[in-house]
Amino acid sequence: MTEIALIEAAALRLAGHVRQTPLLYAPLLDRIAGRRIFVKAECLQLTGSFKARGGWSAVSALPPQARTQGVIAYSSGNHAQGVAYAAARHGSPCVILMPSDAPQIKIANTRAYGAEVVLYDRSTADRDAIGADLSAARGLTLIKPYDDPQVIAGQGTVGLELAEQAANAGIDTADVLACCGGGGLTSGIALALASRAPGLTVRTAEPEGFDDMARSLASGTRQRNATATGSICDAILTPTPGDLTFPILSRLAGPGTVISDDQALRAMALAFTHLRIVLEPGGAAALAAALFAPDLPDTVIAIATGGNVDPSLFATTLERFA
Amino acid sequence: MTEIALIEAAALRLAGHVRQTPLLYAPLLDRIAGRRIFVKAECLQLTGSFKARGGWSAVSALPPQARTQGVIAYSSGNHAQGVAYAAARHGSPCVILMPSDAPQIKIANTRAYGAEVVLYDRSTADRDAIGADLSAARGLTLIKPYDDPQVIAGQGTVGLELAEQAANAGIDTADVLACCGGGGLTSGIALALASRAPGLTVRTAEPEGFDDMARSLASGTRQRNATATGSICDAILTPTPGDLTFPILSRLAGPGTVISDDQALRAMALAFTHLRIVLEPGGAAALAAALFAPDLPDTVIAIATGGNVDPSLFATTLERFA
Repeated sequence: MTEIALIEAAALRLAGHVRQTPLLYAPLLDRIAGRRIFVKAECLQLTGSFKARGGWSAVSALPPQARTQGVIAYSSGNHAQGVAYAAARHGSPCVILMPSDAPQIKIANTRAYGAEVVLYDRSTADRDAIGADLSAARGLTLIKPYDDPQVIAGQGTVGLELAEQAANAGIDTADVLACCGGGGLTSGIALALASRAPGLTVRTAEPEGFDDMARSLASGTRQRNATATGSICDAILTPTPGDLTFPILSRLAGPGTVISDDQALRAMALAFTHLRIVLEPGGAAALAAALFAPDLPDTVIAIATGGNVDPSLFATTLERFA
Repeated sequence: MTEIALIEAAALRLAGHVRQTPLLYAPLLDRIAGRRIFVKAECLQLTGSFKARGGWSAVSALPPQARTQGVIAYSSGNHAQGVAYAAARHGSPCVILMPSDAPQIKIANTRAYGAEVVLYDRSTADRDAIGADLSAARGLTLIKPYDDPQVIAGQGTVGLELAEQAANAGIDTADVLACCGGGGLTSGIALALASRAPGLTVRTAEPEGFDDMARSLASGTRQRNATATGSICDAILTPTPGDLTFPILSRLAGPGTVISDDQALRAMALAFTHLRIVLEPGGAAALAAALFAPDLPDTVIAIATGGNVDPSLFATTLERFA
């Protein structure tokens, strides 16, 4: 199948199981930004992030035998919840490898969806090796967070919806900013928009120090981040662009944007006040870029990718920035 | 026109100017509640509450001359923003009477939409008299918060959307809980559902001590609250049911529900965690009833009416209840 056909097939499997998320805007937010900002609110997705799409797409695409044996995933929390939710609804056993410093709410919710959670130390352990061992021992299928065609296809359904919503809103040309970790969402959206709304240009949003994708896109070769931890944007701290995602983005994405942790927190506070949605730091990176990055066009669309944030961090953010 | 025809006409005037809000749900929230809860997220409406609907409906229904002369409204904050927004987009001058103890964010946003804000003391002043004087002096048309057929019709568009969304979700019978002040929203929804989804029964949700509608429905005659202030649910503290709204609700609504301030705050915290939406206390009353009221059916729909909340109150709520 072509890439757009994979996305269309995923959309059919997802229909009725994940939510079509709204495209929000607020006049007072536009005034602050000095441009028109539309926000695709994937924080309102089931499980609180777009990862429910990729999880559902991947689990639903498995052969029946593999689905019965079960799945395994590694994730700082949002992919974990997406896969756990999809696995539970498909009756599949599910093991999730999570870094021990993941937000408590993400660990608790992953367990609440029925998954077995195995914690590891993000700075010392090799999660790929642990995952491979567990997969082999129990006959589990590994659902990778981004380097999987069915995961990319599931995330690409965001792009299908956005193409239609943008057309309905009269938006022909715009930058589409997406919070970017390994690039699964961004590359899925890029493929969908290239086919359905070629006037919309995907660009990545990453935290300072974890801008591997922006540097890779600029240099034309995959770059690595110097460290694995150190930004508050836990959802999007991946070491390097994916094998599958980077070629797609090299071909289709515009230049990457980079935001500071404080800009992500400011974006969370502004989303609270003007859009009444809850964003986590990593899920606010694209909105932060839409608000604060230089050299943007008059109309931008930010993908607000997730809203699973510990209440104490959210409260502190409001006290500092709202 | 019949009442449903007024609502349908309002829906045509509102199309493209206010937002169709999503019907959200969360598996983990259902588990806590022990029933299926759907949430119509009017906090995601433009201006942060359903009041943008009634405001737009009323302003857009004015004769051209009246629209040019301008409008006036009195409101603790959400009707204020709804009318201010609608007036600004129609090019109408707008004066808003607000109680001096209204949340700062509501006062600031009302001004940001371009309205002239006049503050009064909620416990001593007669807002109706002040409003009448200002209307007469400047030739302004008073847009009442609930006792106006066009305002009720605008709020009723929530019911039109809900009837369609419930049908799509396979919901034939349910209690529909709505945060209730003067009853404009509740009566509008009641009229729409009676015509479009008669298996859905509207019920009011009010704070303890301000349950004038519940007592009025139970007794068959309009009751008054003993005091004007004293609940955190500022958006829905009205002295007595409306002249127009009470007869509608007497005919069409089920028994009213009553919630405590702490239950409203708990509902805000649960909406934060599981739905990733921002609610104000008065906007969370219906969700609180859906979670905590006795004698509810297996499926309930809560109208989350508003999300304009001061950040410090929201932060405190998360610290106490999330």
